[in-house]
Amino acid sequence: MKKLSTFILAFIIFQVNAQQRNLAEKLGYSAEDKLLIIHADDIGLAHSENIATIEAMKKGIVNSTSIMMPSPWATEVAELIKDMPGLDIGVHITLTDEWFNYRWGPLSGKNAVPGLVGKDGYFHFDCAAVAQNASPEEVEKEIRAQIDAALAIGIQPTHLDSHMGCVFYGRPEFVVSYLKLAQEYGIPAMMVEGLFQQVVVPNKELFKEINLDQVKIIDNVLIASTEIYDSIGLPEYYTNVMNELQPGVNVLLIHVAYDDEEMKAITTRFDHWHGKWRQGDFDFFTSEKAKKLLEENNIKLVTWKEIGKL
Amino acid sequence: MKKLSTFILAFIIFQVNAQQRNLAEKLGYSAEDKLLIIHADDIGLAHSENIATIEAMKKGIVNSTSIMMPSPWATEVAELIKDMPGLDIGVHITLTDEWFNYRWGPLSGKNAVPGLVGKDGYFHFDCAAVAQNASPEEVEKEIRAQIDAALAIGIQPTHLDSHMGCVFYGRPEFVVSYLKLAQEYGIPAMMVEGLFQQVVVPNKELFKEINLDQVKIIDNVLIASTEIYDSIGLPEYYTNVMNELQPGVNVLLIHVAYDDEEMKAITTRFDHWHGKWRQGDFDFFTSEKAKKLLEENNIKLVTWKEIGKL
Repeated sequence: MKKLSTFILAFIIFQVNAQQRNLAEKLGYSAEDKLLIIHADDIGLAHSENIATIEAMKKGIVNSTSIMMPSPWATEVAELIKDMPGLDIGVHITLTDEWFNYRWGPLSGKNAVPGLVGKDGYFHFDCAAVAQNASPEEVEKEIRAQIDAALAIGIQPTHLDSHMGCVFYGRPEFVVSYLKLAQEYGIPAMMVEGLFQQVVVPNKELFKEINLDQVKIIDNVLIASTEIYDSIGLPEYYTNVMNELQPGVNVLLIHVAYDDEEMKAITTRFDHWHGKWRQGDFDFFTSEKAKKLLEENNIKLVTWKEIGKL
Repeated sequence: MKKLSTFILAFIIFQVNAQQRNLAEKLGYSAEDKLLIIHADDIGLAHSENIATIEAMKKGIVNSTSIMMPSPWATEVAELIKDMPGLDIGVHITLTDEWFNYRWGPLSGKNAVPGLVGKDGYFHFDCAAVAQNASPEEVEKEIRAQIDAALAIGIQPTHLDSHMGCVFYGRPEFVVSYLKLAQEYGIPAMMVEGLFQQVVVPNKELFKEINLDQVKIIDNVLIASTEIYDSIGLPEYYTNVMNELQPGVNVLLIHVAYDDEEMKAITTRFDHWHGKWRQGDFDFFTSEKAKKLLEENNIKLVTWKEIGKL
């Protein structure tokens, strides 16, 4: 039995790897090329996040972002990017609100998706509460509402991804909706190899409406953890990421803002992911050092827009 | 005919004045006393507005405020006032979003109240658009949602009022809902003499469900206009208000925030009501001069909480 499952796993990995090589090659690169999307999550969260992220895309090496539509600052993003027509910007599907003093709820309305809100009427704090309380229908309704909201303010999303991974780490049906809507709107949805194998492959029947051959699978998604922040720190981590990047399509998730009064006030809840952390991301990815690391390691930046054109 | 209408008007004014004297007297003052609520609108709008308003209530002479529940920063207010149990705080019923880059929509959900939102899914910019597009049922639903949202985060509202006056300057039915819900929740709703005569008195049949004897009518509502801001400026205006205050119950509406990056970014749309204006309100109402003006003019501060207890 072990032998069989090993064989099956090997076969799956072969399949996935074949597709990955295909993705890199379809993008016009060789399977040995190190491709990277430097992706700033959370634009729209706050004014500070907006202006810092845009600055890091104009002056630094950040080349993709995704927007949190339930925030009132989402509209400022639409205004700020008017003179940046080629900008790579997706919808950062947001099903939670993890801050204490800065809260929002579903764009589809709390009465339309009661399972997505707590007693206070706002989104739940974490993905576990989303998975426990929200139905797949509610999640699908809210994903659609957020894509439509982006379109309504003039943002043509280049991709979808998931804030805090709540779409990925809830119920497989959430992933079905996520891939289904990406397919419907004709944009790629971030999907990484490990997740595809854990969630999609064992539930093929659930995903029967999805054209799985068209799902664009990223080789590696990289992100600094709280442990990394507390130990080696962000600059060393990002330096290591660049120096050790694997061939294939990689996504590095960062969060860019200024450590100002607004961001400090929003992020009081945690000792991580706060203004200082986000300022650190800004500082690194607008530095000369970061640009040099790209060159030295022959890393090629790619975008979701390019992937979406495949 | 003219004679009759003059008589009717005189009669109405007599009635209203009798009630006003009653309000002052019921509060334990004489009809000659100059009573004042110094009311900071718009708490909840932004972090800057929150901390400046609370500071002006702790250190200055601001003694009442009302909260904008559709803003994500409303929850910070609930946190900030935990150690201020006597705080006079109402719900600033918000049916618009007048800023360009900082937008929100109805708490009852845009699908539940489509007439309250524009094509972009956010509230309309001004009261005229609300009056043209929203039904009385939608307005009532949203007023209720905002009161319930305040209660859900632990705020016991002391009163209701209306952001930009959209409840007052729309359709008389909006005022019916406003007074009806105030009656249902057992809190006063700001209503000034002139408005009562313009909207309520000629439409008595519409207001048949409201116990009009219980409506607390304010003698004067004072607010700096854009013309005042551009001519004599805020300090001179507020000095005049204090020196010329009339006997009875007066409400002075101000807007308190710091002129910081956040407030500047929110208020880009207008040359008025911006961070500089709000900083000016903060500066005046935390000044020694303002305190002295209260004393010199023998002005007595009263609150909505006191009015609500009548």
